[in-house]
Amino acid sequence: MPVLVVGSVALDSVETPFGKADDVLGGSATFFSAAASLLTPVQLVGVVGADFPLEKLKALVDRGVDLAGLEHAEGLSFRWRGRYSHDLGAAETLETHLGVFSRFSPKIPEQFRNAPFVFLGNIDPRLQLEVLNQVKRPRLVACDTMNFWIQSRRPDLIELLKHVDLVTLNDGEARQLSEQVNLVQAARWIMNCGPKHVIIKKGEHGAFMFNADSVFFAPAFPLESVFDPTGAGDSFAGGFIGYLARTGDLTDANLRRAVMYGSALGSFAVEKFSIERLLTVTRADVDTRVRELRQLVAFEEELRA
Amino acid sequence: MPVLVVGSVALDSVETPFGKADDVLGGSATFFSAAASLLTPVQLVGVVGADFPLEKLKALVDRGVDLAGLEHAEGLSFRWRGRYSHDLGAAETLETHLGVFSRFSPKIPEQFRNAPFVFLGNIDPRLQLEVLNQVKRPRLVACDTMNFWIQSRRPDLIELLKHVDLVTLNDGEARQLSEQVNLVQAARWIMNCGPKHVIIKKGEHGAFMFNADSVFFAPAFPLESVFDPTGAGDSFAGGFIGYLARTGDLTDANLRRAVMYGSALGSFAVEKFSIERLLTVTRADVDTRVRELRQLVAFEEELRA
Repeated sequence: MPVLVVGSVALDSVETPFGKADDVLGGSATFFSAAASLLTPVQLVGVVGADFPLEKLKALVDRGVDLAGLEHAEGLSFRWRGRYSHDLGAAETLETHLGVFSRFSPKIPEQFRNAPFVFLGNIDPRLQLEVLNQVKRPRLVACDTMNFWIQSRRPDLIELLKHVDLVTLNDGEARQLSEQVNLVQAARWIMNCGPKHVIIKKGEHGAFMFNADSVFFAPAFPLESVFDPTGAGDSFAGGFIGYLARTGDLTDANLRRAVMYGSALGSFAVEKFSIERLLTVTRADVDTRVRELRQLVAFEEELRA
Repeated sequence: MPVLVVGSVALDSVETPFGKADDVLGGSATFFSAAASLLTPVQLVGVVGADFPLEKLKALVDRGVDLAGLEHAEGLSFRWRGRYSHDLGAAETLETHLGVFSRFSPKIPEQFRNAPFVFLGNIDPRLQLEVLNQVKRPRLVACDTMNFWIQSRRPDLIELLKHVDLVTLNDGEARQLSEQVNLVQAARWIMNCGPKHVIIKKGEHGAFMFNADSVFFAPAFPLESVFDPTGAGDSFAGGFIGYLARTGDLTDANLRRAVMYGSALGSFAVEKFSIERLLTVTRADVDTRVRELRQLVAFEEELRA
């Protein structure tokens, strides 16, 4: 089944201790699509400026990403420049040029409006709500957000949460949104706003999925070298929703498997700049990494006489 | 089988956002013993001053901790005063009075020298080496350490590592010791110094066990309220080694189970001040928490047609 993603398509310039890359593909919808398209067809809605090197998106099209919803606007594309220090923790943002993204108003093409799975990437919650007004009863709606919207658009974000089934956010954002230090309490606070499932991403420390009556934890794959953390969260979301869309199964058991696919795709994303690694990885590679993640936490209970 | 622990027995004064406690039981050997004694007999070697309220140790004796190796010295006991801020991250040390601990020279009682399992708590690596000169071919020797010794006693610590089977340390210490940012590389560096197993504790983010050809990850239990993080690492070690000593089984499968017992005991330790919670928890409670940890990471692989 197809998944519809609405989010940013950007040009990133990134410096890490291991190198730098200029004007490479970035943005939440880009990373999400690169990951999800390994598992299921993807329908992308976003905007690029007249300066955008469209040929760079061909690899996504070849993988089954439908760009019918990618608006080509007058003006400059969204550009982000960031730097990671030696510990590869949070990026330091050096420059952000919203360009055409500042006037983005998502228009969902008619043929995308029946998408059974919808991912609202990290954009203004008012725009995320606009998307929901255009789609027809999807089976699952998930959204992401960030500190900027939590601070500047809190009422809209709270309104959005009433209309989504699942939210993904990182630990700092979960704490900021809920004003709870403890993640279990933060997740409960967020679920009380509406979503049935809350996924709290902790980067190299793995991810929690909280449901009404259970908690699941997926470890992050212990990579020997992390090259560029940009896009790990959106790739995680792409793996997660992509797996759900491929299987069409929303049972708890399958949601757990989906989180493992999210973790696997997130781990591939950081192995190279931009979506480079996601474009070379195969379905077999992904399945292998999920099995490795399973081995990482596997233990047998004691046999009792 | 008994486990021998050598380490500090202290009086802690702790402030957290949830309250404060003065002159409560603390120290690496104390937390280790409180945790391990739930699973196996413990032999403790340490030192206290003339001011130590010995009656506080009665609960440990009742649980099977043999204090024949607890030296009673002239002078004041080791006291530590620390404070945790709202996020319950690293403690801020306000005062440290080593007292009799500054002249500690561990003397292993004759009846402890055959202990099959030995845990060298976080003390001067020269003293840890002295202990190894007094014991008779234990089946497993594990040690802990900290930033202070890594910096001030590096050559001794490297020498110690040649003689231990397993080392436990936290992520910051692993990076400091190995001068590797990446934990996989840090663990390999440490294993190259001698130990067959390296356990890297990440507090609320769980723990890795690295072996020559495998990695295991145990999640931390997602507690709704963490009361006082003091002693979590030593309680983890107590659960881990205690389980190994109880089962006497050093296979990889059992080492994995032991790490889960470590995680369980660490999670109990932080629920109250000092060893309070460890003294009320039962073996059944521990087994239940291990099962909950197992559920936390449990997922079934996809059935393929």
